[in-house]
Amino acid sequence: MKLATYQNQSRDGQLMVVSRDLAHAVAVPQIAANLQQALDNWTQAAPALQEIYDALNRGDVADAVAFDAARCHSPLPRAYQWADGSAYLNHVALVRKARGAEVPASFYHDPLMYQGGSDNFLPPLAPIPLRDAAWGLDFEGEVAVITGDVALGSDVAACAGQIRLLMLVNDVTLRNLIPDELAKGFGFFQSKPATAFSPVAVTPDELGAAWHDGKVHLPLLVDYNHAFYGNPNAGVEMQFSFPQLVAHVAKTRALAAGSIVGSGTISNHERSSGSCCLAEQRMIEIIEHGAPRTPFMKVGDSVRIEMKDAAGASIFGAIAQTVVSHD
Amino acid sequence: MKLATYQNQSRDGQLMVVSRDLAHAVAVPQIAANLQQALDNWTQAAPALQEIYDALNRGDVADAVAFDAARCHSPLPRAYQWADGSAYLNHVALVRKARGAEVPASFYHDPLMYQGGSDNFLPPLAPIPLRDAAWGLDFEGEVAVITGDVALGSDVAACAGQIRLLMLVNDVTLRNLIPDELAKGFGFFQSKPATAFSPVAVTPDELGAAWHDGKVHLPLLVDYNHAFYGNPNAGVEMQFSFPQLVAHVAKTRALAAGSIVGSGTISNHERSSGSCCLAEQRMIEIIEHGAPRTPFMKVGDSVRIEMKDAAGASIFGAIAQTVVSHD
Repeated sequence: MKLATYQNQSRDGQLMVVSRDLAHAVAVPQIAANLQQALDNWTQAAPALQEIYDALNRGDVADAVAFDAARCHSPLPRAYQWADGSAYLNHVALVRKARGAEVPASFYHDPLMYQGGSDNFLPPLAPIPLRDAAWGLDFEGEVAVITGDVALGSDVAACAGQIRLLMLVNDVTLRNLIPDELAKGFGFFQSKPATAFSPVAVTPDELGAAWHDGKVHLPLLVDYNHAFYGNPNAGVEMQFSFPQLVAHVAKTRALAAGSIVGSGTISNHERSSGSCCLAEQRMIEIIEHGAPRTPFMKVGDSVRIEMKDAAGASIFGAIAQTVVSHD
Repeated sequence: MKLATYQNQSRDGQLMVVSRDLAHAVAVPQIAANLQQALDNWTQAAPALQEIYDALNRGDVADAVAFDAARCHSPLPRAYQWADGSAYLNHVALVRKARGAEVPASFYHDPLMYQGGSDNFLPPLAPIPLRDAAWGLDFEGEVAVITGDVALGSDVAACAGQIRLLMLVNDVTLRNLIPDELAKGFGFFQSKPATAFSPVAVTPDELGAAWHDGKVHLPLLVDYNHAFYGNPNAGVEMQFSFPQLVAHVAKTRALAAGSIVGSGTISNHERSSGSCCLAEQRMIEIIEHGAPRTPFMKVGDSVRIEMKDAAGASIFGAIAQTVVSHD
């Protein structure tokens, strides 16, 4: 099934069930006021939501309305956890190669992951506020899962069973703040402003055969300033599956329902697949020309992130954001 | 005023107003079911909570019960943000000196801060689960604030006005997982399992003259295995005030109500003040003897973290945790 969150007067928005073709939607306050409530009580909520979803797809819901992505917040406008991996080692290799470093062998069996801020996400069509262009604003196209409760020490199989929903991500990053933060040793912090997620979150079964081995085997479609920028496949070169990424978190602590775990910037070795962030293109330019040519985002630049099924239909709706100045 | 959260069948627990002397408490479902709800709606909730608090202190609340810290969860059992600074540079200097490194000059004007997991906190009297003693379990005694909504780009003065509550912290840490995580460059992750907070959260006015310049000028009392371990003053050597730490977060993103921002491990230059974590004692041993003598926590070891006012009364109640094995 497909779920979305309409913005309303509340902090968590209004849970909506969305039809498979993204044409219609219906509020379901009788099941849950918002998505976090549904996740907190998934065993009871999921069958009830599925029933509405099936009826919506049949055209059997009287109070259905036209689905409007412009009314959407991120499916979880705020969440209790946002942990983001970096599972595409081609991306890591390019970043390292540009500074003359190798990928350590441990990176192939021990996932990179950082803890992101989760108190304030951006809606999928909201502008990206930029206070200082010198900070080097970049987008990062990713896929993420939302989990149920995961017990401390859960193995990969147990984690696979707790993947509730999938979304697309724009993991907004301030590249020029990263070097000083990494030098301090405490990881990313100011370099990771508010993240945005796709209008719609979907259960894994919605992906059909494209969801296997805990990965999404479809291209992520990224346009930058209304032109093709990348379409790397999210499945083939993902070094760690989502269940493996969740298990990485669970090694030393439990995860609460509604935890979001991301894939990291999607990247394929094949260069014609383009990129899902500006930094990767800049690294390729550094490797090829000795210096980057692609500038970071400035006011007015826009990014669109979407994923389509084999028939060409949008699965999650599109993240589409334009940079605006913030005083 | 003083607030606590009793564990119940819900994920967020039951908001309780607690008397100043920690003797009595009363549930306030007519104001807010839980603390996050009160924080989401603080302008309306705070005066109503204060009225109950005043009546409770006068003995004028008919349905008051004896306050029982054993029933408490952390004031926020789960939160949308837990960002922890490292504002006591004596602690940083000792850690660095033990490995022959200096404190960079930038550390005196640019705070260290990491993003912690906030989806699953431990109750203040709950055991600390340990899966592997080789991970090097340690406690860290700290103070933290809970904020209201803080706009992107807020200055220090604006951040000061958004400090709602203060708590004590046991920032549980797995020391031996840190070196590999720092080498990966993405910051702490598996090395930071679930954190615990004091039974009671208090508004800044409860600290009287001890709250000034955005710092808590009182000793943090730490006992380890029922013996004195440290009592450093939390105010005098705090390099960055809480408003400065909150402003560090707000530089690139807004903070949502209920965000927790921590001080980092409290530490004084004066050695007779002891320590608030085992790692610091081990660093002193390395500097003095060439090797650490103090082992990390093992099953059965216990830590108690408390803060008392000038009259010797406990302000927040005590965090008191014992390590247990977790299979």
